[in-house]
Amino acid sequence: MPYASREIHLVARPEGMPRPGDFRLVEREVADPGEGEVVVRNLLMSVDPYMRPRLAEAQALNVAMDGGAIGRVVASRNPAFAEGDIVRNGHGFRDYFASDGRGLQKLAPDPALPLSVYMHALGGTGFTAYGGLLEIGKLKDGEQVFVSTAAGAVGSVVAQIAKINGCYVVGSTGSDDKVRWLTDEAGIDVAINYKAGPIGKAVQAATPKGIDVYFDNVGGDHLDAALRRMNTLGRIAVCGMIAGYNGQPAPVTGLSAIIYSRVNIRGFVGTDFMHLYDQFRSDMTDWLKSGRVKYQETVLEGVDNAPAAFIGLMKGENAGKMLVRLAD
Amino acid sequence: MPYASREIHLVARPEGMPRPGDFRLVEREVADPGEGEVVVRNLLMSVDPYMRPRLAEAQALNVAMDGGAIGRVVASRNPAFAEGDIVRNGHGFRDYFASDGRGLQKLAPDPALPLSVYMHALGGTGFTAYGGLLEIGKLKDGEQVFVSTAAGAVGSVVAQIAKINGCYVVGSTGSDDKVRWLTDEAGIDVAINYKAGPIGKAVQAATPKGIDVYFDNVGGDHLDAALRRMNTLGRIAVCGMIAGYNGQPAPVTGLSAIIYSRVNIRGFVGTDFMHLYDQFRSDMTDWLKSGRVKYQETVLEGVDNAPAAFIGLMKGENAGKMLVRLAD
Repeated sequence: MPYASREIHLVARPEGMPRPGDFRLVEREVADPGEGEVVVRNLLMSVDPYMRPRLAEAQALNVAMDGGAIGRVVASRNPAFAEGDIVRNGHGFRDYFASDGRGLQKLAPDPALPLSVYMHALGGTGFTAYGGLLEIGKLKDGEQVFVSTAAGAVGSVVAQIAKINGCYVVGSTGSDDKVRWLTDEAGIDVAINYKAGPIGKAVQAATPKGIDVYFDNVGGDHLDAALRRMNTLGRIAVCGMIAGYNGQPAPVTGLSAIIYSRVNIRGFVGTDFMHLYDQFRSDMTDWLKSGRVKYQETVLEGVDNAPAAFIGLMKGENAGKMLVRLAD
Repeated sequence: MPYASREIHLVARPEGMPRPGDFRLVEREVADPGEGEVVVRNLLMSVDPYMRPRLAEAQALNVAMDGGAIGRVVASRNPAFAEGDIVRNGHGFRDYFASDGRGLQKLAPDPALPLSVYMHALGGTGFTAYGGLLEIGKLKDGEQVFVSTAAGAVGSVVAQIAKINGCYVVGSTGSDDKVRWLTDEAGIDVAINYKAGPIGKAVQAATPKGIDVYFDNVGGDHLDAALRRMNTLGRIAVCGMIAGYNGQPAPVTGLSAIIYSRVNIRGFVGTDFMHLYDQFRSDMTDWLKSGRVKYQETVLEGVDNAPAAFIGLMKGENAGKMLVRLAD
């Protein structure tokens, strides 16, 4: 019997901040699996800042959008997958999909942890934080660290790994609630509400010993603020530049610090350090179980809320990782 | 008998473009050497873009300015130096100086080469070009290279080393004469006069296969133009950002390319790759003798012309390395 599915299409390329009318909910049936196929019921999907630039070109119009998800195999005619298998996949934004198995990654979730952590701390954002800080940022114990969007899915993991490594950690975020979470729960040294005043002055005051590693999720004024405080041979790991994603220009003027402080700025993606993956899984599982890495989730219910989740993420309305739960 | 010397003092901190009135020519006597001392007669001195930012703070007022020079020992009571020794030193902007020998580096110039090449291609600017391109830029044979201020002391060496390594080389410069020198003498593939039109469009047209290595001497619009053309895992070696040195803001808006193309941007100084120095001396001596590396010099006569040389450099009036000859 076919599966009644709903999916989210991009129907217009957003100008500036995406709006609900840029997306459409479409109902369709997913047929029973053919020979060699599986049908997957998505359980959780992710919305992430990297999706915004894709809407300008890479994401096709009038088809289901792509995005990270975790689902359960509900029917299988592929010997590599059994009914009930939990699979990580890139086919978010839809309830059901059929697959020949390519691109599906079987997950053996630790029963002592909620499945949702595999969408953030033990998923792509956690791995991005781990490798970005340790491999790209070349973090050394006890260094001075600044991380932007420090209460977000990537930033909160970066900040806590830096603390585990004995660093002095300053984070920026966009609300007083998030400031409190960062200092009281995540245990960082100084949390800055960047909406409360000029970020440059706040970063200067918070970093009396300068900055050895800046983990950049923002670009623009945050990058300028960090550049002005970089110590000699400092590293800037560029994970994202959300300041420029929605069309507003985010010029940077302080780049001459690159010369004076011999700074290394490096953009990266997770595939740049796949050799760290097993170590990451092991470390992060331990840290989550022991409570040394804490997290927040903002979970909306139902695929019809995926556009709202994405727009809310762009506006910073999430606390921690923004997820959509499609089914239990 | 004492030596009648003239020296250049900084008497006012320049705002924007330096002016002749920011400097003063001062006459003084340098005494015969005391025990353990030498007196050096400077023969050649250098003016360089890096000096501009120093004028805002690091260079003290009302004392002789610092800068690279080559001189001859004219009197010695230090057993490490003999009369007639040629010494590299950091005491430009003056005819004579006394020294206890610290910071003096004896030079054994190759008699088949003019002494002046030790102030550029075989000096600090040449070494900066060599290590910046090969070590910081991690140049590989046959790559796509863009270099700004390509007719300058550093840029012209960068461009020619890239050609020696079989690369496709695009250079920007500020006059049609320099464009001709770059294509006809230095033999690069495309030379752009950045004053003739928007640098972004010109760089785009000149780099159909993108850019693997950008050697940045300018920052600002040049860095933006390069960022928009960077290939995946491209490298930007930041040697200078002259666009911002004289006070005008030089904002950069295209930094998100750092993420999409996973670009590595790195500032550096020559001491970051001192292990390459012997190889550099050997390679560059060969290249100069064989004519594979060509150079231009703009030489002004007399220490009294040092401010004019420096201001001319800031205005791009030099062809190749800007030098001042103090004596033969």
